[in-house]
Amino acid sequence: MRIDDDHFHDQCGVFGVFGSEEAANLTYLGLHSLQHRGQETAGIVTSNGKQLFVHRDMGLVQDVFTPEVMDRLPGTRAIGHVRYSTSGGSHVKNAQPIAVDSGHGSIAVAHNGNLTNGLYLRRKLEAEGSIFSSDSDTEVFVHLYARSRQRTTIDRVSDALSQVEGAYSLVFLSPDELVAVRDPHGFRPLCLGQLGDAYVVASEPPAFELIGAEFIRDVEPGEMIVVDKFGMRSLRPFGDRKVERKMCIFEYVYFARPDATFDGISVYESRKRMGRVLGREAPADVDVVIPVPDSGIAAALGYAEEIGKPFELGLIRSHYVGRTFIEPQQSIRHFGVRLKLHPLRKILEGKRVAVIDDSIVRGTTSRKIVRMIRDAGAKEVHLRISSPPTTWPCFYGIDTPRRDELIAAKHTPEEVASYVLADSLAYLSVEGLHEAVGGSGYCNACFTGNYPLEIRDQREERRQLPLVGV
Amino acid sequence: MRIDDDHFHDQCGVFGVFGSEEAANLTYLGLHSLQHRGQETAGIVTSNGKQLFVHRDMGLVQDVFTPEVMDRLPGTRAIGHVRYSTSGGSHVKNAQPIAVDSGHGSIAVAHNGNLTNGLYLRRKLEAEGSIFSSDSDTEVFVHLYARSRQRTTIDRVSDALSQVEGAYSLVFLSPDELVAVRDPHGFRPLCLGQLGDAYVVASEPPAFELIGAEFIRDVEPGEMIVVDKFGMRSLRPFGDRKVERKMCIFEYVYFARPDATFDGISVYESRKRMGRVLGREAPADVDVVIPVPDSGIAAALGYAEEIGKPFELGLIRSHYVGRTFIEPQQSIRHFGVRLKLHPLRKILEGKRVAVIDDSIVRGTTSRKIVRMIRDAGAKEVHLRISSPPTTWPCFYGIDTPRRDELIAAKHTPEEVASYVLADSLAYLSVEGLHEAVGGSGYCNACFTGNYPLEIRDQREERRQLPLVGV
Amino acid sequence: MRIDDDHFHDQCGVFGVFGSEEAANLTYLGLHSLQHRGQETAGIVTSNGKQLFVHRDMGLVQDVFTPEVMDRLPGTRAIGHVRYSTSGGSHVKNAQPIAVDSGHGSIAVAHNGNLTNGLYLRRKLEAEGSIFSSDSDTEVFVHLYARSRQRTTIDRVSDALSQVEGAYSLVFLSPDELVAVRDPHGFRPLCLGQLGDAYVVASEPPAFELIGAEFIRDVEPGEMIVVDKFGMRSLRPFGDRKVERKMCIFEYVYFARPDATFDGISVYESRKRMGRVLGREAPADVDVVIPVPDSGIAAALGYAEEIGKPFELGLIRSHYVGRTFIEPQQSIRHFGVRLKLHPLRKILEGKRVAVIDDSIVRGTTSRKIVRMIRDAGAKEVHLRISSPPTTWPCFYGIDTPRRDELIAAKHTPEEVASYVLADSLAYLSVEGLHEAVGGSGYCNACFTGNYPLEIRDQREERRQLPLVGV
Amino acid sequence: MRIDDDHFHDQCGVFGVFGSEEAANLTYLGLHSLQHRGQETAGIVTSNGKQLFVHRDMGLVQDVFTPEVMDRLPGTRAIGHVRYSTSGGSHVKNAQPIAVDSGHGSIAVAHNGNLTNGLYLRRKLEAEGSIFSSDSDTEVFVHLYARSRQRTTIDRVSDALSQVEGAYSLVFLSPDELVAVRDPHGFRPLCLGQLGDAYVVASEPPAFELIGAEFIRDVEPGEMIVVDKFGMRSLRPFGDRKVERKMCIFEYVYFARPDATFDGISVYESRKRMGRVLGREAPADVDVVIPVPDSGIAAALGYAEEIGKPFELGLIRSHYVGRTFIEPQQSIRHFGVRLKLHPLRKILEGKRVAVIDDSIVRGTTSRKIVRMIRDAGAKEVHLRISSPPTTWPCFYGIDTPRRDELIAAKHTPEEVASYVLADSLAYLSVEGLHEAVGGSGYCNACFTGNYPLEIRDQREERRQLPLVGV
Repeated sequence: MRIDDDHFHDQCGVFGVFGSEEAANLTYLGLHSLQHRGQETAGIVTSNGKQLFVHRDMGLVQDVFTPEVMDRLPGTRAIGHVRYSTSGGSHVKNAQPIAVDSGHGSIAVAHNGNLTNGLYLRRKLEAEGSIFSSDSDTEVFVHLYARSRQRTTIDRVSDALSQVEGAYSLVFLSPDELVAVRDPHGFRPLCLGQLGDAYVVASEPPAFELIGAEFIRDVEPGEMIVVDKFGMRSLRPFGDRKVERKMCIFEYVYFARPDATFDGISVYESRKRMGRVLGREAPADVDVVIPVPDSGIAAALGYAEEIGKPFELGLIRSHYVGRTFIEPQQSIRHFGVRLKLHPLRKILEGKRVAVIDDSIVRGTTSRKIVRMIRDAGAKEVHLRISSPPTTWPCFYGIDTPRRDELIAAKHTPEEVASYVLADSLAYLSVEGLHEAVGGSGYCNACFTGNYPLEIRDQREERRQLPLVGV
Repeated sequence: MRIDDDHFHDQCGVFGVFGSEEAANLTYLGLHSLQHRGQETAGIVTSNGKQLFVHRDMGLVQDVFTPEVMDRLPGTRAIGHVRYSTSGGSHVKNAQPIAVDSGHGSIAVAHNGNLTNGLYLRRKLEAEGSIFSSDSDTEVFVHLYARSRQRTTIDRVSDALSQVEGAYSLVFLSPDELVAVRDPHGFRPLCLGQLGDAYVVASEPPAFELIGAEFIRDVEPGEMIVVDKFGMRSLRPFGDRKVERKMCIFEYVYFARPDATFDGISVYESRKRMGRVLGREAPADVDVVIPVPDSGIAAALGYAEEIGKPFELGLIRSHYVGRTFIEPQQSIRHFGVRLKLHPLRKILEGKRVAVIDDSIVRGTTSRKIVRMIRDAGAKEVHLRISSPPTTWPCFYGIDTPRRDELIAAKHTPEEVASYVLADSLAYLSVEGLHEAVGGSGYCNACFTGNYPLEIRDQREERRQLPLVGV
Repeated sequence: MRIDDDHFHDQCGVFGVFGSEEAANLTYLGLHSLQHRGQETAGIVTSNGKQLFVHRDMGLVQDVFTPEVMDRLPGTRAIGHVRYSTSGGSHVKNAQPIAVDSGHGSIAVAHNGNLTNGLYLRRKLEAEGSIFSSDSDTEVFVHLYARSRQRTTIDRVSDALSQVEGAYSLVFLSPDELVAVRDPHGFRPLCLGQLGDAYVVASEPPAFELIGAEFIRDVEPGEMIVVDKFGMRSLRPFGDRKVERKMCIFEYVYFARPDATFDGISVYESRKRMGRVLGREAPADVDVVIPVPDSGIAAALGYAEEIGKPFELGLIRSHYVGRTFIEPQQSIRHFGVRLKLHPLRKILEGKRVAVIDDSIVRGTTSRKIVRMIRDAGAKEVHLRISSPPTTWPCFYGIDTPRRDELIAAKHTPEEVASYVLADSLAYLSVEGLHEAVGGSGYCNACFTGNYPLEIRDQREERRQLPLVGV
Repeated sequence: MRIDDDHFHDQCGVFGVFGSEEAANLTYLGLHSLQHRGQETAGIVTSNGKQLFVHRDMGLVQDVFTPEVMDRLPGTRAIGHVRYSTSGGSHVKNAQPIAVDSGHGSIAVAHNGNLTNGLYLRRKLEAEGSIFSSDSDTEVFVHLYARSRQRTTIDRVSDALSQVEGAYSLVFLSPDELVAVRDPHGFRPLCLGQLGDAYVVASEPPAFELIGAEFIRDVEPGEMIVVDKFGMRSLRPFGDRKVERKMCIFEYVYFARPDATFDGISVYESRKRMGRVLGREAPADVDVVIPVPDSGIAAALGYAEEIGKPFELGLIRSHYVGRTFIEPQQSIRHFGVRLKLHPLRKILEGKRVAVIDDSIVRGTTSRKIVRMIRDAGAKEVHLRISSPPTTWPCFYGIDTPRRDELIAAKHTPEEVASYVLADSLAYLSVEGLHEAVGGSGYCNACFTGNYPLEIRDQREERRQLPLVGV
C-alpha cells in the first residue's frame, strides 16, 4: 500500500493520438485515466500539422489543464505525459513531454522508463557541446534526434534508439508524425487503439475505454508504430534478433490499474490468482481476511476464497487526502496512515485477522497498519504479501529505494514479522507469482536480482552538481 | 452511488473540542474525517477564552486551512463545520460556523440539519428589525440567541431552541463555553468523546478515532452537552416529554462512513445485513455479484454471501476526479459516470451480473452504470437496491429533489428496470431495512411519507428575492 | 508624502449610478478613479430592479473585479466602495458596500466617513438583539434601517440618519432606489453627475471625467439625492436649521486628486496657492526647490514661483512598489523610502535645497527623505510643509495616529527640524491655509482642535473583544 | 508617453553581484530598480560556489519572487534579469537568465540587447545538432559557450562573443565566476559598482543607489569584467581595433530612469536640455507648458524655462493601472489613455497649451492626448517632441514597429500635426538632440537610418514555425 514515500514510487504514463479533431481533449482524458502512474507533473503537446504547441506544469491533469489552456492547444495530433520522478528531481523543468526546436524542425517526446546509459550519453553529448535544460534522461532522446544525420523523422528516431539502452515506452510527435516505440525488452507496457479514423496509443488499455476507443493490441517489444497522414504502419527498428521480452512483472502486482489487461492477461484476475496461490502456499488460521485497500482487494478476495474464510473491508480508505496536510502533535501515533486508512472496529474486534498487502518496502507503513488493526481489537494479525520479498532495486523505470533500505534485503520473514508487529508474515514465492500471472518473458529483477540488461550508468560518476530550479 | 447531482446530496458535519492546546488542529483533523458529509465549504471558529477567531471558505478542509491560516486560530476551544448546501445557495456567505457579535458577546454556531420553521422565523425576525447576511436557516439561531433576555449562555441557547422546529445537531461556541445539542427527535447524529482532559463532539465517531480520542457515547435526542472550565455536564432543555427518537435511517444506508457506529450499531454491518436481507427477499440467478463502489461494497458482500455467489470488484472507481472537469464531445456516451467508474471487462464478459447500489434517485446514473456493464459484455444485468424505493422528499437536512423528480415516486420497479436497461430490479423492503439495521426509533419518511414533524415552511412564501453574493 | 504607515491613512471612496445598461462597468471605472482613497478592499453591489448582487474582496479594484465577476453583476443600478480602514480592522468582513436582507427587503450601503456615536449605537442595537458581522460602524446604518417602522425606503433612511452623528457621505441601494446623502456638516465630499439618462454620484469629480459623465454639482451638506424610475430629486432630511458646512480642509491639502474640484475650487490650484503663501510666509534662501512627489508637486511649483527659484524633480518616484516587499538587511538605511523615492544626485549635489511636502505625521519619513537628500550631496536642506502643524486627531473619517504620536503636537518647529535633520523647517499658517484654499466653512480640527461635533464614543468603552476574522 | 503598445517597447535590464551574503536579496532589489526596463518576466540565478539555482517567471519582480522562493536561492553570487520581449514571444520559456548544464558545467546568462546574426547562428547551431528550448536569441550564447573547445570560462565566453554580432550587455554566471560584457559598440548601457567587498553590475546606476552600493564607472564598450574569488579584473576580448562607441541615444530620450547617469551625463539634465534646445528651435506662443507625465516632465521644465512660460502639471497620471483592465463600451472615447491620464481642466481651460512628449510612434496616443486636452477646454494645443522624428526601426534591442507603421517615416510634421489634431507640431532636430545630450559616439539610427552594424538576419528566412508554449 502506498503511503507517503514508503512504497515504490509510481512511474510515468504516456498517451498519443493522431487524427482527431479533439486531440487535446482526448489526451487530457487519456492522461486522467493514467493519473495513477504519476501525480507530480502533467503535459500535453499538440500539432496542427505545422507547429507544435506545448503546456506542462506541476500538478494533477485536471489542475494543470484549465479550459483556457485547452483552448490554446489546437490540432488533430497530440501526445501527453504524467510523471512521478524516476530520474531527475521534482521540478517543472523535468515535466514532460519535452519539446524543442532543432535543425530537423520541432520535436516532442514523452517517455515511460529509465535509460541504463542515460548519464553516459549525457556526458558524451555535453562533451560534444550539447546543453541540458532538465535533469531527466529523456532529454537525451531529443539531443540524439537533433544530431542525427538521417533524412526522415523515422530514421532519426531509429538512429537515436540505436544508441540508448534501458527501458522505454516512448511517444514522439513531430508536426507531421506520431511515432510510438517500445524498447526491445518491452519492460514497460504500451498499447495501440483506434477511435474512428484516429489512432491512439497509451500505457494502459483503460485509457482507451474512457474515450470510447477500441483496443487493438499491445505494442510489441521492439516495435515502432508510425502514424502519419498516410495511415498507421508497424516497423521493427531493432530487427528480431535483439528483441527479448522482459515485461515488468510488478505492473501486475501493483502499478497497473486493475481493469488493465496486458498481453491478454487481466491485471485484476492475476492479482486474484496471486491471492489464491498465496492462500495455498501460506494459509493462515484466521476468522477474517481483509485487504489493504485499494491495491490489496483483488488478492484478498482470492486469498479468502482459497482458505475459505470471509472477506471483509476491515480498513476504510479516505478519498480526500491530498499532497499536503497539516500534522498534529507527535502524540498522535502513526498519523500518516490514519489519514488514509481507518480501521473498522466491529469487523476486527476479537478476531484473528489476515491482512493482504501487495508488497513491503521499508516496513514502516506495514508496521503502522498492523498496529492500527491491533488497536482496533484484533486478537491476531497475520500479514500476507501477494508478491515475493523485494530485495533488489529497479533500474528500468521504477523509483525504488537503495538496496540497504529494502527491509527484505536484509531480514528474514520472521524478523520482518517481528518488526511490523505481526503474528506471522508470509510472501508469495517467485514461482507462485509467475504461476499466478501466467505467460512468460517477465523481468523479475526486483525479486531475484536477475537483471536482463547491464547498468552502464552505475559505473559513471556525476562530475559536477547540476543546476537547480527553485 | 453519488455521481454529480443524481443522488441525495450529502449534508453537513460538525465538530467541537474544549480544553486542548491543539484545538484548531484537532478540529481540522476532525473535519477531514467528516469531509464525506460536505465538500462545499469548511470553517473553524476558535476561542482563546476572551475572543473568537473565525475562518471559513469554499473548498475542501485541506485547501481552506493552510498552515498560515491555522497559525491565526489560537485557543483551546474550537468548533468546525463542513457543508453541502441544504438550505441556502452555494456561496461563501453561507459557509459555517456562523460567528457574530451580539449584546451577549460573540457567539458562533455550526449546524447539521434543517429547520422546518426556518423561513417562518426569518420572516418574524426580519419584521422585528433583524438583518440577514446569509441564506442559511442557521442564521436564525444567532438572531434568537442575540434577542434572548436570558442571563446565561445556556439559557439563551435554550430560549432559542424553544422556538425552532426541525432537525438539528448543533455546536455553539462562546468565548467561555461549548454547547452541543441534538434535537428532540435526534434526526441527525452527534457523538461525544474525550481526549485526555478535553471533551470532543462530532457528527460521527471516526472523527474521534483519527485524533486518538475515546468515544464515550452518542449524544441523546433532546440532550444538551455543556463544556466549560468546570467540566462537562448534560442537560435536558426539552424535558423528556417532547423527546421521541427519530434518527434518520438513511445515515445507515448511505450517508455515514462505514466505520461509524451509532447507538451501538455498526454502519458497515448494517449495510452487510441490508445485502443479506435483500438477497433473501430478491435473490438473482447470476454468476457474479458486484457493488457500485464504494458505497455499495458492504451490501454486495452480504448479498453475495446470502445467495452463495462470488463477489467481485467489477467496477473500478477513480480517485482523481475533482469538481471541475473538461467535457469531451457528445459522442462519448454516459461520460460523467465513466470518469468515476471503469468496468472490469474480464469479470463481466459473458456473465449474468447482480449489481448492488444503495439507492436510486432520478435513475439517470443507474442507467449509465447498467449500460456500461452491458457494453463490457455482461449477458444479464440485475440491479438490486439495498434500500426501499425513495418516494418522498426529506425536510430534515438532506437535499433531495422534488417529489416529481424521484423516479420511484411515479414508476413501478418494472418500469424503472426498463428505464435503467436492467433485466430485473428489486428494492429492499421497508421491513427488511428496519430488520437489517435493528433497533427502533427511526425516521423513514423518504421511503414512507410518514413525516414525524410538520413542515411549517411549506405554507410560507418568499415575498422577495434575497440578495445574491457573486 | 505617504510612506508605509507614516502618514494619515487614506479613507474611503464611494460611487453610485442609476439608469445605465453598464452600471457595473461604470462603477468599476469610477472606483478605479477613486482608488487613491482606499486600496484595501473594493466592492460593488448592483440591482436588476428585483434583486441585489454583491461582490467584495480585499485588493485593488482591478484585481477584485475579474471579467468573470463582472459578468455576474447584472442590472442598471450599482453602488461601489473602496476602503482604507478607518473603523474596523483589515479584513474582508469589513469590506463595503454592506448588503443585507431585512424585513424591508434587501438594502446595501457604502460609507465614507466615521460616526462619532457609532459605538454607542452598536451597544444600543446589540442590547436590543441585533447581531453584528463586521467591526465597521457602517453596519449601524443597515440595522437602523431594518428596525425603522417607516413605510418607504427614503423615510427609513431618514429615520436611520436622524439617530447617527458624525461624518458621512453615503450611497444606499435598494432594488428600486439609489439614495445618496451627505451629512449636515458635509465633512466628506460627494458629487452629482449625469451620463445620458443615468445619474451618477461619486466622492470626487474625476470619476465622472473618466466615464464621460457630466459634472452637475456638489451634493450639499445635509442634502439627500434620491434617484428612482421617476427620476432624480433632492431632499433635505435635516432641515436647514441643523446644517452647518464643515468640509474637511485636508481634502485640499492631501486626500483628493489634484484634478478634483470641490465647490468650484480646484485642488491643484489651491495646492499651488498653498505653495505661494508658504513662500511668502517662509521663504528659504536656496538654489533649487524640489517636491516630495507626487503630492507635493503643485505646492512646490507655487513655492518656486513665489521665491523665484528653479523648480526641479530632485526626487524620482517609483511606480512599481506594491504592498509586500522583501526587506534587505538592516545595513541598508532608510530602506522603505528608498524603494519609492530615488534622489537625483545631479540636481542636488552641492545645492541648497528647499523640499516641499504636504504634511508631517510622526516625522520618521521626513527624516529619511532629508537624509537621502543630504546623502545625495545637498549642502543645505530646508523643509517646507504646505499645511499647518498637525496636532489633533481626526474623528471624522481619517485614520490619524493618537495625539501623542503626532510629532507636531509635542515639539516646536525647531525641535522637529532637528529631528528630521533639516537646516530649517516651516509650516504654512492656519490663516495661510484658509487664504490659499479660499471660500469658507471648513473643518480644520486636526490643526486647531476646534471640533465641530462632540465625540460621544470617546466616553464609551468596549466591554468585550469582538470576533476576529482570520 | 507609453500607452499600451503605442510606443517603443521597453527592453531589458540586467544585474549581477559577486561576494555578498545577500546576493539574491540584492539582485531582487536591483531588478526592482530596473523594473521600468521590462515588466514581462523576471528571473534570478544564484551560485553557492558549487551549483546554480534558478527561478524565472512571468510578472513583476515583487510578484515573481516571494519569500519562499527567495529562501531557495542560496549563495553569495547572483545575476538577474527583467524583460520585455525584443526577440522571442511572450512566454515563460523566454524568461531570462537562461541557465543550462553543459560539458563545461552549469552556466547562466542574462542579456540586454539584440543580435543581428542571431537567427543565422541558430540555423547553424541547429544544423550541427543543437536543440533550442526558447525563441530568444540569448540561447545562442549558451550553445556557443557549450560548444567552445576553450579551457576556461573566460576563454569560452570570449570564443562565443567572437561569433556573435549585434547589441549586447551581458552578465554570465558560472558556479565560480561572474562575467559582465558590453559589446564593442556599447549600444546598451552597463555599469560597475561596489558594495563592501562585493562587486555589482547593473544596466543603470540607480540600481546601485537603492542597495547602498557605490558607483565605480560605466563598463566600457568592448570591455569584459570578470569577478571571481581572486577579485575583479578588466579584459578586452575584442582588442581596441574593433571597438567603436555607438551608445543608444534613445536611452537618454526615454528608456533610462531620469536619475541615471551614463558616461557622466545625467539623463534628467540631458532631457531638460532637450527641452531647452527644443524651445529655442521651435518656440510656441502659448500660455502654459505641460508635460506628458512622467517621461516628458524634465523636457517640459527645460522648454518652459527657455520660452519663459509657466510650467504646470496639466495632465495627472494614475498609478493604479495594471496590465489587464476591463473595457467599457465604445462610446467612451480614447479610453486607454483616460485610464492613465486625467486632464486638469482648471489649468487647461481657455488656454493656449504647449504639450511636451518624448516621442511619437504611430501617433494614435498623441491624438488621444491632444483630444483630451482640447475636451478639457484648451484653446490651442501645440505639440512639441523632445526628439527627432522616428523614421527607422531599431535592430539593437528596442522593439520598434515596422517602418511603415512609424507615422514620421511617411508624413511631414504638418501632416502628423493634422492627424493628431494639434495646432502645431515640432520635433527636436538631430543636431539639437546631440547638442542636448553632449559627448559623442551615439547610435541615432532610429532617427537617421545610419546603422552602425549590418543586419545579417534580415537576409535570413525562418524555414519553419517554432514550437509554441501555451
